[in-house]
Formats: sequence, C-alpha cells, structure tokens
Amino acid sequence: MGSALLPDLGTEIVIPVCAVVGIVFSLYQWYVVSRVKVSSERGDTSPSNNNKNGYGDYLIEEEEGVNDQNVVAKCADIQNAISEGATSFLFTEYQYVGIFMIAFAILIFLFLGSVEGFSTKSQPCTYNKEKMCKPALATAIFSTISFLLGAITSVISGFLGMKIATYANARTTLEARKGVGKAFIVAFRSGAVMGFLLAANGLLVLHITINLFKLYYGDDWEGLFEAITGYGLGGSSMALFGRVGGGIYTKAADVGADLVGKVERNIPEDDPRNPAVIADNVGDNVGDIAGMGSDLFGSYAESSCAALVVASISSFGIEHDFTSMCYPLLISSMGILVCLITTLFATDFFEIKAVKEIEPALKHQLIISTALMTIGIAIVTWTCLPSSFTIFNFGTQKVVKNWELFLCVAVGLWAGLIIGFVTEYYTSNAYSPVQDVADSCRTGAATNVIFGLALGYKSVIIPIFAIAIAIFVSFSFAAMYGIAVAALGMLSTIATGLAIDAYGPISDNAGGIAEMAGMSHRIRERTDALDAAGNTTAAIGKGFAIGSAALVSLALFGAFVSRAAISTVDVLTPKVFIGLIVGAMLPYWFSAMTMKSVGSAALKMVEEVRRQFNTIPGLMEGHAKPDYATCVKISTDASIKEMIPPGALVMLTPLIVGIFFGVETLSGVLAGALVSGVQIAISASNTGGAWDNAKKYIEAGASEHARTLGPKGSEPHKAAVIGDTIGDPLKDTSGPSLNILIKLMAVESLVFAPFFATHGGILFKIF
Amino acid sequence: MGSALLPDLGTEIVIPVCAVVGIVFSLYQWYVVSRVKVSSERGDTSPSNNNKNGYGDYLIEEEEGVNDQNVVAKCADIQNAISEGATSFLFTEYQYVGIFMIAFAILIFLFLGSVEGFSTKSQPCTYNKEKMCKPALATAIFSTISFLLGAITSVISGFLGMKIATYANARTTLEARKGVGKAFIVAFRSGAVMGFLLAANGLLVLHITINLFKLYYGDDWEGLFEAITGYGLGGSSMALFGRVGGGIYTKAADVGADLVGKVERNIPEDDPRNPAVIADNVGDNVGDIAGMGSDLFGSYAESSCAALVVASISSFGIEHDFTSMCYPLLISSMGILVCLITTLFATDFFEIKAVKEIEPALKHQLIISTALMTIGIAIVTWTCLPSSFTIFNFGTQKVVKNWELFLCVAVGLWAGLIIGFVTEYYTSNAYSPVQDVADSCRTGAATNVIFGLALGYKSVIIPIFAIAIAIFVSFSFAAMYGIAVAALGMLSTIATGLAIDAYGPISDNAGGIAEMAGMSHRIRERTDALDAAGNTTAAIGKGFAIGSAALVSLALFGAFVSRAAISTVDVLTPKVFIGLIVGAMLPYWFSAMTMKSVGSAALKMVEEVRRQFNTIPGLMEGHAKPDYATCVKISTDASIKEMIPPGALVMLTPLIVGIFFGVETLSGVLAGALVSGVQIAISASNTGGAWDNAKKYIEAGASEHARTLGPKGSEPHKAAVIGDTIGDPLKDTSGPSLNILIKLMAVESLVFAPFFATHGGILFKIF
Repeated sequence: MGSALLPDLGTEIVIPVCAVVGIVFSLYQWYVVSRVKVSSERGDTSPSNNNKNGYGDYLIEEEEGVNDQNVVAKCADIQNAISEGATSFLFTEYQYVGIFMIAFAILIFLFLGSVEGFSTKSQPCTYNKEKMCKPALATAIFSTISFLLGAITSVISGFLGMKIATYANARTTLEARKGVGKAFIVAFRSGAVMGFLLAANGLLVLHITINLFKLYYGDDWEGLFEAITGYGLGGSSMALFGRVGGGIYTKAADVGADLVGKVERNIPEDDPRNPAVIADNVGDNVGDIAGMGSDLFGSYAESSCAALVVASISSFGIEHDFTSMCYPLLISSMGILVCLITTLFATDFFEIKAVKEIEPALKHQLIISTALMTIGIAIVTWTCLPSSFTIFNFGTQKVVKNWELFLCVAVGLWAGLIIGFVTEYYTSNAYSPVQDVADSCRTGAATNVIFGLALGYKSVIIPIFAIAIAIFVSFSFAAMYGIAVAALGMLSTIATGLAIDAYGPISDNAGGIAEMAGMSHRIRERTDALDAAGNTTAAIGKGFAIGSAALVSLALFGAFVSRAAISTVDVLTPKVFIGLIVGAMLPYWFSAMTMKSVGSAALKMVEEVRRQFNTIPGLMEGHAKPDYATCVKISTDASIKEMIPPGALVMLTPLIVGIFFGVETLSGVLAGALVSGVQIAISASNTGGAWDNAKKYIEAGASEHARTLGPKGSEPHKAAVIGDTIGDPLKDTSGPSLNILIKLMAVESLVFAPFFATHGGILFKIF
Repeated sequence: MGSALLPDLGTEIVIPVCAVVGIVFSLYQWYVVSRVKVSSERGDTSPSNNNKNGYGDYLIEEEEGVNDQNVVAKCADIQNAISEGATSFLFTEYQYVGIFMIAFAILIFLFLGSVEGFSTKSQPCTYNKEKMCKPALATAIFSTISFLLGAITSVISGFLGMKIATYANARTTLEARKGVGKAFIVAFRSGAVMGFLLAANGLLVLHITINLFKLYYGDDWEGLFEAITGYGLGGSSMALFGRVGGGIYTKAADVGADLVGKVERNIPEDDPRNPAVIADNVGDNVGDIAGMGSDLFGSYAESSCAALVVASISSFGIEHDFTSMCYPLLISSMGILVCLITTLFATDFFEIKAVKEIEPALKHQLIISTALMTIGIAIVTWTCLPSSFTIFNFGTQKVVKNWELFLCVAVGLWAGLIIGFVTEYYTSNAYSPVQDVADSCRTGAATNVIFGLALGYKSVIIPIFAIAIAIFVSFSFAAMYGIAVAALGMLSTIATGLAIDAYGPISDNAGGIAEMAGMSHRIRERTDALDAAGNTTAAIGKGFAIGSAALVSLALFGAFVSRAAISTVDVLTPKVFIGLIVGAMLPYWFSAMTMKSVGSAALKMVEEVRRQFNTIPGLMEGHAKPDYATCVKISTDASIKEMIPPGALVMLTPLIVGIFFGVETLSGVLAGALVSGVQIAISASNTGGAWDNAKKYIEAGASEHARTLGPKGSEPHKAAVIGDTIGDPLKDTSGPSLNILIKLMAVESLVFAPFFATHGGILFKIF
C-alpha cells in the first residue's frame, strides 16, 4: 500500500500555516478597505478625512462629488444605522438560538450517553471487535463539545461576515464617486475578507479540535472522528436558524418596502422616505451575508466530518496514517492558497474599467480558481496519499488508487464550475433566458410569472446532470468517501466563492446608501450595475451552496448508513419507500412555512409603512424623517418568531422518524428529502434571480430591446416588479434554506445513529 | 388454501353483466339529459320545443326567460361552434398521435420480439423452469395488439366524454333559467354518462381481451398477463398526448383570452366580443374532459394490468384459479354497481335547492360511494378469494389472508377519500386557506402569488401521509399486489369520481354560453356558482388522479422490478442513486416544457386577439362578429406542435435509460420521478384551484370579508385575476400531466422489461 510522501509532522505544520496565511491575507484586505475613510456622524474632523478619502488620485475622469463632506457624513450615518440594526438583530437571534443550542446539546449528551447506559467502561469497537474503544459516554461528551464548537464557529463566521459587509457598504458607495472600478474593488475585497476568514477559521478550529480530542482518544480514531461529527451538526444547526431567520428578516423588509414604496407610492427603491428602507438594508447583511456564511461554513464542516468519519474506518484510520487521514483538511488548506492567488487576479493583476467588465471579472475568478485548484488537488493527492489504500464501503473494504481519489475531488470541483456557469446563464440578463422573461412582461405579470417559473424548472436540468455525474464517478471510485471528497472539491474554492457571493449584498447595500444619501443619478447607475452583477453572483453562490449540499448530504447519509449498520437501503421495502415519499414531501412543507412567514411578516411591514406615510406629516415631501426603528423591530420580531416552526420541522424530523420508525425509514426520508429538495432549491433560487435581473434589465435599458420594455414605471416594468417581489422569498428564504434542510437532517441522523440503531423504531417493534 | 365461493363461470358472467349495466345506466342518463331540448340553428320549430324545454313545471319560483326562443337558438349556435371546434381538434390530434402510436407499436414488436431473436419455439417459463411457456415473439405480438387496443379504448373514452360534455353544456345553461338545482342535475347527469361509459367500457374491453388471448395462451397465464400489460401502456400513451395537447390547447386559449379581454379591454370573461372565447370553451372540453378521461382510463387500465401481472405469478396464476385471478376486475365490477346507487342520491333521492347545497351534494357523493364501496369490497373479497393464498414478492412467495387483501383495497379507497377532502379544504372558497389567499390580494398580485404557492406546498402534506399509509399497509400485507389493488380501490369509485369531475368543465362551459348568449346577470350568477363548485371538484378529481397515479406507478414499478429479475433497488449504489436524482428532476424538466409551451402559445393568442380588436371595426361595440376560427386554429396548431417535446421526453426516457444504463438505473429513475412528481402535481393543481376560487370568492362577494375585497375591477380583484391566470397552466397543463409522466414511464418500463434485462445497460457493459 505504501505511505504518503508528506510526514505526519509536516501535516501538523502545513494545515495551521495555511489557515494562518488565510487569516493574514483577509486582514490585509480589510486594511486596504479601511483606507477608504468614512467620517463618523459625530464629525470626525481629522485633517486626512477632509480632503483625501483614502486615495489621492483625484484625476480619474469620472470622479464626481468626492469633496462633498456632507455626503460622506450622511453615508456614515446610514452605515451606522444599518450596522447597529444588523448587530442588534444578530444578538437577539443568537440569544434565542443559544438557548435552543444548549437544550439540544443536552439532548445529544443524553441520547448518545444512553446507548450503553452511561457506562464508563471501554467497549469492543464497532468494526473490529477484538480492539477496545472508548465508551459511548465519551462519544456523548465529545460530540456535545464539538457540537458547541461548531455552533460557535458558525456564529463567528456569520457575525464577522456581517461586520465586514456593513463596514464595506458605505465605502463602496463613496468609491463609486471615483468610478465603477474602484467601487468594485472595495466590494470584492470585502467579500474576500469574509471568504478567507471563514475558510481559514473553519479549518483552524477543526484542526485544533482534532488534536485536542486526540489527547484523550489516543489510538481510538473511530471514536475520535465519530465525536468530531458533532462539529458539522453544530455548524449546520446554527446555519439553519441563521438562514431561515435572516431570510425571513430580509425578505419581510424587502417585500414590505417594495409593496408600499414602489407599487403604491411610486418612489424609487431605497428611497430614504420609505420607513422600511433601513430594515431592508439590514436584511441583506443578516440574511444574504451572515446566513450564507453560516450555511457554507456548515457545508464545509459537514463534508470534512463526513470524509473523516468514513476515513477513520478505512485503511487510513486502521493503520493510523495521520497525513492520509487529514487529506480532507489538506485539500482545504491548498484551497486557501489557490484562492489567495485567484483573488489577486481581481484585485491587483487586472483592473475593471467599465460596467460590462464586472461580470466577466467575477466569472474569471471561478475559472481561475477551478483551474488552479485542479493542479492543487493533484499536488495534495500525490504528496499526501499512498498510491493505493482501502476505503470502507458498507461492510466491506474497497481498494482505491490515489489517482482515482484525485478524480473524485476534481469531478466535484468541476461540477461546481458547471453549476456556476449554468446558473449565470439562467440568471444574468446578458443572455436570452432572462431577456425572454423580461419580454414576457409585455403581456403583464401573469406571463412574467409563468415564464419565470418555467425558467427555474428548466435551470435544474444541467446542474442535476452535473451532480449525478459527480456522484457516479466519485461513488464508483471510492464509495461514500469519494462523495465526501467530491463535496470538499466543490467547496475547496469556498474563499473565492464566498468573496464573489458576499460582493452582491455589499453592492446592493452600497446602492441603497447612495440613494438614501441623495447622491447623483450617475453614482446610483454605477452601484446598480454592481448590484445587477451581484444578483447573478448571488445566484451562482446559491448554486454552489446547493450543489455542495447535495453531495455533502449524500456523504453524510452514507456515513449514517455505515454507522447505523444498515447494509442496503432497498426502495422496494415498505419501510424505506414510505420514508422516501414523505422525505420528498418535507421540502414542500418547509417551503410552505417559510414562504407564508415571509408573506405574513411582509403584510405587517406594509401596514406599518402605510401607517407612517399616512400619519407622519411631511414624510412624503421629504420634510420629516420616518421611524426606521419600528420597521427594524417588526422584521426582528417576525423573523425570530417565524423561524421556530420550520426550524423545529427540520430538527425534529430525524429524531421522530429515527425513534419511532427506525433507521431504514430514516434512510428513506434522507434520500427523498435530498433528491426532491435539491431540485426545488435550484429552481427557486434561479427563478428569483432571473426575475430580479429581468427587472434590472428593463430599468437599465441598455439595449434596443430593453428600451422597448421600459422605462421605470411602464406597464412591463410594473409587471417585472411583481415578479421580482415574488422571487424574493423564493431566492432568499425558502430556496437557500432547503440546502440546510437536506444537510442538517443527514448530519443529525449521523450523530444520533448509534442511538437510533439501539433504541429506535419503537413503532415497528410494538406492532 | 381453499378456493373462492364464486365459480369461474360465475366470474365470466358477472363481469360483463356489470359492465353492461354500467353502459345501460349511462345511456339512460344521456336520455334524461337529451330531454332538455336545444333547437338547432337552422330553426327547429317542432311544437314541443317552443314552449316546453323538456320539463313542464313552469311554476318554479326563479324561472326566467324560459320562453325566449332567441336565446335558445343562440345557445344552440354556440354549442355547435364549441362541439365542432372540439371534434376537429381531437381528430387532428388523433391523426398525429395515431402515426406515433403505429410507430411505437412497431417498436414494441421489434424490441420484445428480439428478446429471443424472434424465435417461434416455446421457452422455459421465467418463474418455473420446468414448464414451457409461449415464445417471446408471441408476447411481442400480443403486447402490440393489447397496446393498440388500450390506445383505441382511451381514444373512445376521451372522445365520448367530449361529445357528452359538448352536448350537455348548452342544456345546462338553458336549465339554469329554471333554477340552480335543475342546471346542477343536467351537468351532473352528463358527468355520470361519461363516468359510467368510461368505467364500463374499460372493464368490458379488458375482459374480452383476456378471454380472447386465453384462446391462444391456454394455460400459460404468465405470458398472457404479460402481454395484457400492453393495454395499460396503450391507454397511458394516448392519455399523455391527450393531457398535454389538450392542456396546452385549453390554457393557451384561456390565458390568451383573459390577458386581452379581462386585463386590457376590461370586458367580462366569456364575452362574445372576445375572439378567443370559443377556443377557450373548446379547450375545457378537449383538456379537462377528454384529457382527464384518457388519464383516468389509463390509471384504471394500468392498475388492473399491474395487479394481473403480479397475480399471474402468484398462487392464483400458478393454480389457475380464474375467479381469484379476476379479483381486480371483480372489484371494478362492484365499483360500477356501487357508483350507480351513489349517483341516484344526487339525481333522484335528494334535490339541490340553493347554491350553498352544491358543494355538500358533491362531497356526499364521495362519502356515500366510499362507504358503500367498503361493503362492496368486503363482499367481493369473501366471495371471490380463498381464505389464504400466496403472492409473488420479489423472488419469494408470501402468504396472504383474504382479510389482509380486503384491508389493502380498503386503505386505497379511504386514502382517496382523505385526499379528496384535503383537496376540497385547500381549494374551496368556503374555508380559510383560499380566503387567506384572497385577502392577500389587498397588497397586490405579488403577495397573492406568494400565499398561493405556499398554500399549494402546504396542501401536499396530508395527501402524502395518506398515500404513505396506504402504501405501507398494502405493501406490508401483500407486496406489490397489495399496492396494485390499493390503487384499484382508490379507482373503484371512478364512475362517481369522473362524474363530479366532468361536472366542472360542463358548468364552466354553461357559464360561457350564458354570457355569450347574452342571458341575464341572474342566470350568469347561477352558472358561476355551479362553476365555483366545479373548480373544487376538478381539483378533487385531480387529487384522485394523482393519488391513484402514485399507487399505480409504484405497483407497475414493482411489477417491472419482478419482471426484470432485480432483487433489490439499493439507493446506496451509484447506478441507482444517479437514477433517483435524475428521475426526481424529470418532472421539473417536463413542467418547464409544458409551462413554456402554454406561455408561448398564449402570447400568440394575445397577438391575434389584439389584432382582431384593432382591425375589425365595431367589434368592441358589439356590431361586428370576431373571427373565432383563427383563434381555434392557433390553439390547435400550437398544442399539436408543443405536445411533441414533452411527449418525447416521457416516452424516450425509459428507453434511453433502459438501453444505455440498464434496469438498476431505470429503477432509480422511476422511484425518483414518482416521489418528486407526485408532490409537484398535487401542489400545482391545488395552487391553481385556490387562485381560481380566490378570484371567484372576490367576484361573488358572498360575505362581509369578500365584499371588502371586491367588486370586479377593484385592485384586489385585478391581483386575483393575475393569480388565476398563473394558475391556469399549473392546474390544467403541467400539474395533471405529471400523473401520466410517472405512470407512463413505469408501464413502459414494465412492457420493455424483458428487452432491457436482456440487451440493456450498454454503457456499463462497455466501461
């Protein structure tokens, strides 16, 4: 079998070093962004602020209003309001979720501890009865600890992302005065800060945790990596509430603001007279930034855990080959370095000079990172893996060659790129699908919706084939380990993926701030262009998130099946089939809840906004200020309250099914939810993205065709606004939350597998 | 094991007698309907028409305009136009589909004949190698014959349904002058004509075919019933094109008519000035009547075939117990008698006197037929089955008691009732879900769509649990035979189900004719009330169709797996899993095609309608007649052209997957399409039904709440119209077509199973 070229000590050094490099790089990007000065509302009058604004190059052609100190102060005010709103919401959210997390941690401890009746004696190992392993009680304790660690890391990921985004939004606006290229760089760098911090942070915490747990577990790697799966569960549980809560928050505010502002009062988006405008901008940061950050961190943590737990019962684990065991972490380490180089292409090697260069620049990021990462994977594979090894495959050991595993990772990586490109094609207004949807607005909102839904359904086809091929290749070569590393391959460029993803909401906020600060039409045009590209990148990011979620949850599902000691999941048994059909229904149930929540919360928001327009004298004329805080409070209260039922559905389903119906039915539920949820998630997020950009296409009027549909306020434009509003909850609440539904149910089943296998299936035992 | 109480000769008599009773009953109903006279446009002036109109009871309070001969002549004109349009479309459709059917018949012959290289020698049987069975060539020939018979029976079912509906529509309008109760009875009786003709016809043809095939096959029941599966394939193939073609036709016309008429020109629905109005009314007959008829006939044929083919390799077949073998047909025979009694409750035992009694009357039909049928099933089970027998269960024989099989059929029957009730709850405007959707129109079309989609998603939950329980019970008791008879149980009351389902489009047409004939507001109100109940019953009918399709396709899937000699369908193998995820994607692909087709065809219709309004002088003022024929032609051409790609997707997928990827992947595709498709189908048809009735709720203004949203033309009403238009393709094209997608792929796989098992999986064989 041979062993890896990289010695174990090398692995112990390489991983943390790469993580630290990532963190340092992100701090450097932050520093560069921070050089754009935003004066505080209290009037920071240090000389450097008054006339410099960071850069000294006043001679750029498009420059305008750079010296208007009034505008800078206004931007600072708005930025503060957004940042405060977001911070206060996240704190409230974390308080509620924190209570839940502690309760759930206790549950994990009790359930897993009860497997061997809280015995403190060592037990024969599951896969090698001759060896002694640590007791189930130890798994219970360490799973609980890693669960909490995962949750905390997820909180940090989301929170830091939000902080950076709210730090960067006004800076992007101010740079937009100097031109679209400058603004782009600020927004992109800020996205990169988030991307690198999250990737490096996740890797570092996982690495440290493994090393600390090893102090207790010693040679019992099976137990060690079983306990580590709690990390993935913690990350995803937190992400669930982040996505759902944040998603409801942002869309309640957005839909509410649009329904009264754009439709009834005919005032522009982000108009400062609209009382819900601050809540809307806060929402972008808590939903699209913090929620997305937690989500992708969850995927990353889960795919690592799935790979590790399968590896621990394969030859790596059995032979205690630490470097090979850490292959998933080494791939992620390499990913940080690759993304670092990729980022330089956008920030330093090339410069954006015109609006039409934005989307290609972001697309090039995807291509460059994928191409480089392919080489990176090859390097890691040939230095860190023996040329041949065995992988646990549902009860047997399967021999795998290192080049086969290389193909597994690479196929995941390239499937991600294909999903990204297809998503771009279906959601960017540079191509015919969105233009067709825009064109259908001629005959009103109904045809717009019909065409938009059809577009979303159609956009599922190629991504599913890409995922299917990735699954087939990696599954055939290396069973569930192959799937897990394919997922990691797709997520290996997560830092770049998150950078271009976070760029979207930052640009959206920048546009909002420009409007609210009363900046010129020209600057608003620039931020709109950034934002349109951002819609596409957000859709691409969601595509990645969904694709990786599909692979991750399949890997987790496989790990669950292994750990629950099921040898086949036969569709042709009643227990499995009813699980399959009910599992396929869960995404609908979940979407019904989240969409209704957004709708109800938006209706409350509409009432409040109308009330303010009707009762605050001079508001419409711009003499009086609206009461932003009440709207922020409505969004906060609604999202906290409404996130509980869908959260409970996802968290309780595996427990109820496992306890009452047993592991076979639970397997069916996981498979059903996976294959059904991934389709709705892709179609919902692409439909929403397409509607948003169809509207922007009409508004921008950049082509002959677009001008026949516009301008703003025309009948086709009104129809497009309706589509955009419908798309909001689809693309930002129910769609992306479904990723978490499928992942979380799988990882939860995995963590509780020993308990279900021992005590589950009560109903079938009784009858 | 014992044997059945009913001798074989009795079975040979009972089945055709019941079928004939059904046919006679339906002819009697037709006769009663025909007593309502509609004078021909040439001016049929026989004395009985001038003053009698069928009934002589002039003293009914609400009577109005009964003697206006002008109105009768107008109704006759319109009825002729609709009937001619529908006949001409169906003939065109059948021509195109006929060519396809012949080509496909040749394909069946070639593929199945090639299994043993077109050898004419007898071969050892599949399940009993000691016996000799007829050669594969015989299966090929008889499968081809039964395929063509199924297709022809389906054509007859759909065509007769359409003829009756277009015969009844004007009669319903004319009876509406005498009151809502009279009109209800005519519409309901006409629905019953269709229901009984279809159920009896399907049973009779199947019975005769089996007896004729037996002349050749003799004791080789395995071969006989394998060949009979072609009957199901033929029925469903025809139904596919009927549903898709009819669905595109009806909704292109409906959406096109509404977009210009209601939204742009602000004229009422079914206004005779609208050039697309005849096409719209034709559409109801070819889509909702002929399409639905073919669809349910297909379900009936397939579930019978699935049950028979499994029974043929169980103890019934092995021991040549003809009565027990015919249990599925005996259940259907009993169903005809039960539905006959049930119909009398609506037509003779009680009388509808007020609008609010319509929905309860239809609901009572469901309850009565289910309750009576439960007794009927018990009688059939105890007289026609031995007390204990064995059933083929994926390679083994499982002992089943007769009371267990009774429970299988009964659970299917009652699951159907539950699905019906839940559908009614979510789509009738008497309950809060639709009222909430209507209320959300206050804030515009966007919230209406969000709430409507959420409602559809939510409405999936209970039906899926009902289906899951039915599957679990019947699967556990009697494996795939249990599932097949559960499907038959759900379809045993098909005559009643179709009667209340066909009632909907007939009432819709009646309303259209009233409007076009310029009848009074009061009569239009009555037909509107009938139509609102019809929307709900149409949704219930779709719920039944979907629920039974789910059970049928699972039974067919099981039969396919048995026939392809696969012992497990393990999700945890790459071949099966990629099938599962791609299969779950197919309903999206299919829906994307059908929705886009409706959208594009509707846009063409919009252009034509606009052109006529703009170029025909005096059209808007009512002085000139529009050119109805051009609109009919647009719908016809569009639907014929657009039905091909989705049809090809469904028909070719099993062939491509089977030939290139083999039977394991095909199993995955079938399971995936089933569990995913059933959800989209239910949610799409309920969302559409809810939007339609939310609009009707606002229009009717029957409650304090409804009046705050109306009247017609108010902003909430406009928003409701947009929702209704979006719902049209969902509820009448893509949603119901999905039933056929899941059934047809399964039955096609079953028919081609021997070929795939012998020659399939080329790709995996190469690599």
